[in-house]
Amino acid sequence: MTDGVPDVDLDAVRREGLLPARGAEATQHDGTGRVSLSFTVLDPDPARTVQRQVRVPPGVTVFDSASWNGIAIDSTCGGHGTCHKCKVRVEGGAPITRHDVKTFSREQLDDGWRLACLVNATRDLAVDVPPLTTRPKAATVGVGRQVILRPAIQKRYVELDEPTLADQRTDLARVLDAIDDLEPEPDLHVLRRLPSVLRKADFKVTAVIVDEALLDVEPGDTTGTQYAIAFDLGTTTVVATLLDVTTGTPVAVASMLNQQQPFGGDVITRISATMLDPDTLGRLQQASADTLSTLAAQVCEEGGVDPAHVYEVALAGNATMTALALGIEPEPIGVAPFVMAAAHPPVVLATDLGLRLHPRARAAIFPALGAYVGGDIVAGMLATGMDRDKRTRLLIDVGTNCEIVLSDGDRIVSTAAPAGPAFEGGAIRCGMRAADGAIEVVKLGETVELGVIGDVEPRGLCGSGLVDAVAELVKVGLLDGSGRFVPDADAKEVAPALADRLTRIGEERVFVLHRPAPDAEPTDCVVLSQRDVRELQFAKAAISTGWSLLLEELDLEPRDVQQVLMAGSFGSYLSPASAVRIGLVPKLPVLRIVSAGNVAGEGAKMSLLSLRERAGATALTEEVTYVELSDCADFNDRFVEQLAFAD
Amino acid sequence: MTDGVPDVDLDAVRREGLLPARGAEATQHDGTGRVSLSFTVLDPDPARTVQRQVRVPPGVTVFDSASWNGIAIDSTCGGHGTCHKCKVRVEGGAPITRHDVKTFSREQLDDGWRLACLVNATRDLAVDVPPLTTRPKAATVGVGRQVILRPAIQKRYVELDEPTLADQRTDLARVLDAIDDLEPEPDLHVLRRLPSVLRKADFKVTAVIVDEALLDVEPGDTTGTQYAIAFDLGTTTVVATLLDVTTGTPVAVASMLNQQQPFGGDVITRISATMLDPDTLGRLQQASADTLSTLAAQVCEEGGVDPAHVYEVALAGNATMTALALGIEPEPIGVAPFVMAAAHPPVVLATDLGLRLHPRARAAIFPALGAYVGGDIVAGMLATGMDRDKRTRLLIDVGTNCEIVLSDGDRIVSTAAPAGPAFEGGAIRCGMRAADGAIEVVKLGETVELGVIGDVEPRGLCGSGLVDAVAELVKVGLLDGSGRFVPDADAKEVAPALADRLTRIGEERVFVLHRPAPDAEPTDCVVLSQRDVRELQFAKAAISTGWSLLLEELDLEPRDVQQVLMAGSFGSYLSPASAVRIGLVPKLPVLRIVSAGNVAGEGAKMSLLSLRERAGATALTEEVTYVELSDCADFNDRFVEQLAFAD
Repeated sequence: MTDGVPDVDLDAVRREGLLPARGAEATQHDGTGRVSLSFTVLDPDPARTVQRQVRVPPGVTVFDSASWNGIAIDSTCGGHGTCHKCKVRVEGGAPITRHDVKTFSREQLDDGWRLACLVNATRDLAVDVPPLTTRPKAATVGVGRQVILRPAIQKRYVELDEPTLADQRTDLARVLDAIDDLEPEPDLHVLRRLPSVLRKADFKVTAVIVDEALLDVEPGDTTGTQYAIAFDLGTTTVVATLLDVTTGTPVAVASMLNQQQPFGGDVITRISATMLDPDTLGRLQQASADTLSTLAAQVCEEGGVDPAHVYEVALAGNATMTALALGIEPEPIGVAPFVMAAAHPPVVLATDLGLRLHPRARAAIFPALGAYVGGDIVAGMLATGMDRDKRTRLLIDVGTNCEIVLSDGDRIVSTAAPAGPAFEGGAIRCGMRAADGAIEVVKLGETVELGVIGDVEPRGLCGSGLVDAVAELVKVGLLDGSGRFVPDADAKEVAPALADRLTRIGEERVFVLHRPAPDAEPTDCVVLSQRDVRELQFAKAAISTGWSLLLEELDLEPRDVQQVLMAGSFGSYLSPASAVRIGLVPKLPVLRIVSAGNVAGEGAKMSLLSLRERAGATALTEEVTYVELSDCADFNDRFVEQLAFAD
Repeated sequence: MTDGVPDVDLDAVRREGLLPARGAEATQHDGTGRVSLSFTVLDPDPARTVQRQVRVPPGVTVFDSASWNGIAIDSTCGGHGTCHKCKVRVEGGAPITRHDVKTFSREQLDDGWRLACLVNATRDLAVDVPPLTTRPKAATVGVGRQVILRPAIQKRYVELDEPTLADQRTDLARVLDAIDDLEPEPDLHVLRRLPSVLRKADFKVTAVIVDEALLDVEPGDTTGTQYAIAFDLGTTTVVATLLDVTTGTPVAVASMLNQQQPFGGDVITRISATMLDPDTLGRLQQASADTLSTLAAQVCEEGGVDPAHVYEVALAGNATMTALALGIEPEPIGVAPFVMAAAHPPVVLATDLGLRLHPRARAAIFPALGAYVGGDIVAGMLATGMDRDKRTRLLIDVGTNCEIVLSDGDRIVSTAAPAGPAFEGGAIRCGMRAADGAIEVVKLGETVELGVIGDVEPRGLCGSGLVDAVAELVKVGLLDGSGRFVPDADAKEVAPALADRLTRIGEERVFVLHRPAPDAEPTDCVVLSQRDVRELQFAKAAISTGWSLLLEELDLEPRDVQQVLMAGSFGSYLSPASAVRIGLVPKLPVLRIVSAGNVAGEGAKMSLLSLRERAGATALTEEVTYVELSDCADFNDRFVEQLAFAD
């Protein structure tokens, strides 16, 4: 307060929505849930000046609005309002903060010049962006998303003046004054050893800042080592990616089964386990910690990185996995009305997740939309740009619990559909996970063509193979629209070459996909049973009920959907044609259906490479409307309608 | 962000200094380092409407300015900008925040109505305060300070609606929505058990908030139990006071010797100890933790309070004690140029101090001004109102290290004087601590009158007795102005009745204060030696050099000082007359010199009873100018000047 004005959390001020100038009030945003900003990105060569129109939720800062849309604005603090570099000209001006006053002349202020990170887009705005003085690094992550590198992790090498009787500034003040474009909060851990660190290093040190926190002060210049780990914490599989945040490049990737498996294959059984025995929560938390630690050790080992140089991790998981990882009681998630303890976990440390990296490494946990639309799908929306793509798009993450998101470019709605274990191979007679020996592709014609993982003898049927098999059987007419195998007589007619594969095991009719030996008994074959078909029907009915409900929410017809993104370890491998044929996705040209891959993991990476993208994830949770399927009055009628296979 | 405007740290906004309306700029504050606010405290009975003029540092909020001066403004959030109750009318208006917009009509805004906690006094202001709708509790602490009770600790009992499919708000949201005049940050610890706490308590719970943090959610109604502990962490003695923050009353008090004693009696020897052996810092931290824990257990035991119901502690100690308590390396404090690791310790938990109270209890550590003007003296300034009293006042905390503060009602300057161990009884031939058998009062006339602690046989001389003895000897003429015992011949002339007590031990002249037996040898008597006098001379010279330098800083004469506050375990017991006579304090009428008692402890209590007072302490560190004595070019000349006894 030496200048007589108290210190201030500029990040909070940045987020504060001040009353627009009177003149502006008339043009308050149109209530579509978005305001539109038109950026004029100036260039020394006028010919190369470009116009960009973007739409963002009201209240987002001009700086974030630009970042989210790949428009770079000068900044060294990354939008914390401390570096005073993100100068833009706002048509009609905006409220003036004292930081604007410090940065601009009265004339410039009158002319509309402001710091972009302190201007909230509470109305439609026209913004001029001056040419960059520095070339910002960018990386491509997510589904073809270009992300401007502004990680939460920042390192600054500084050479400080030694204290004198005339300059008795504290050790901390000395460090902070040297990085005054940032205003991090110190950590007690840093202060404890700061005096000896500074003096042993002759006051030549590197400040380690993560978001708002001064995490450490390291002797000498360590700016070369800045790492973070992105975790995709799946119920079944967990993936870790070690990132060099200075370049945005992945250094190493590792994955393994979630060690909570012994407690149950799906979230419900794991939650139930905690309800039966009070000690189970602790054990599940430990299992999660072991999984994450093992992967962290692996990627550091493989990347040749000292774990102490990993300063932040990001975690994207469903609501249950996230709760268990943090040791939060999950019970209410498991029973109606399906409630989480919290949607936005507080700031936590990597140690809270059981990780041993830098002792004070931070953990950024993805917020959730609902008990069954968790941080993983929010990360997925970020990775697929659901919040900024103007097209009408449908994101489907297929799995035991299937998350569905629909956006028309303005509004975003989402829901969760209980698809059951069919896609994971569970409850399917010859079902198995997508591993060696699993049939993943099925083509029926004069013969049966099988695509088998690992090109080995088929052992069973994985989710994509299941969908293929059913779709093909519907196509050749061995399954009718209701999902019943046709009578043998009809079979011989519609598909003579395949009819003999239609047989029985006990009373149940089955279709033989693979016969290990000419004389093998049906029980020794890889078959698709009538019950299997029913299982898949139920799963696809739940899912299609979900997206059809969402389409109604936004008054859209299936044909209006311009792109369907199939995500998740299962969805990504699914054949679009088959998905359409069984009605898992809307009846659309196959080209509109694309595999999006592991979008949760990509979203987690993005949040580590850009604080602005992370802010985008939080904004998403505020603007997406969650529709509770089980709360929908005519759910059952809709469900039954969807049971039949489209034809 | 449901209303399209992002959440915001309102406390930070509250602290933000926005550009005053153009009209206002002309009347920017006068640069005395203060702005003046004239409050018109309205009353239903116009006759009882009062006018109050106060001066505060620029940038302080109108709400704080009022609180600090005992003017109550309605508020349930205590000035966090969340309850929208602190309505005032600001002459000429002030910048409008969106919270004002939510609270007032356009007409009221035009008329100057604002939320007091969001208006920064960046210029002189006239403010109308409407009559209170609630009667705020107040307590008297410090030196006759009336403190409005607005503790950081707040409890709210709430009865929540149970979740339904139509209301799937998270458990946390359910709690926060019920206390929406506060916006606390949840703690992971709270979330972990929140689901079972809510459900076992049928959603009837008590939210525990400390400052910005949701510390806990307790089953049922626990609003009756809200406790905090104030620690005065002295180098020698440590005092703990258990407070009921709902009433502001002390429940129990306990004190004990600082268990760091074995490592040395003063800060320098303890710092040196850490430099010799790297393990010593850990042991000193543990000794501090043991001391604080023992006292905490004592006061809880005595007050019949469950330690788990103590949610906050405040700690006022000098820079070294504070560093050692937090485990921060103290070395640079001990050697020139005397530098601290940090002046404002970060937010820490009571557990960081080794305390076992509520597991997440917060610790408010008093900030320091300099390596030798620590949090204890800042607490002292708070308790004595150095920052808001309009009189010219001098605060002297006498001890091995003597802190001196001078205020002329606008500016505040401070320094530290190395008085040495004389006052603690160290380096004094018959010196001892103020304990049973210590001579604390000396009167010389025809006979020698002694005041002895505990009314027992005198065993030695404590600080106040030392000062008395020397002052009296100067008065009767047995000591000359230079501090030398007069020749025996002169002695017989000036004080015949006492002359025979002037004798020798070896070569050194001594004055016998108490002779245990008529024939006792001088070596068996309680005496004051020539060297003792020198010790005191050095001490008082250091101190008077300190305050005389501060007087010059503010262009004041000693006679301008309207009040001298003698603080500290020693200063409080000192006889004003003697202090004046030996020149320890300026030559002033004795009535202007008052004993202030344990001001550090009082300040610590105040910070627990009022967040606004705590903000006042932080403001103090920003506005007080620290003068480094050892950096003063002519320190030695000044020192020598001050050696002589005034006469």
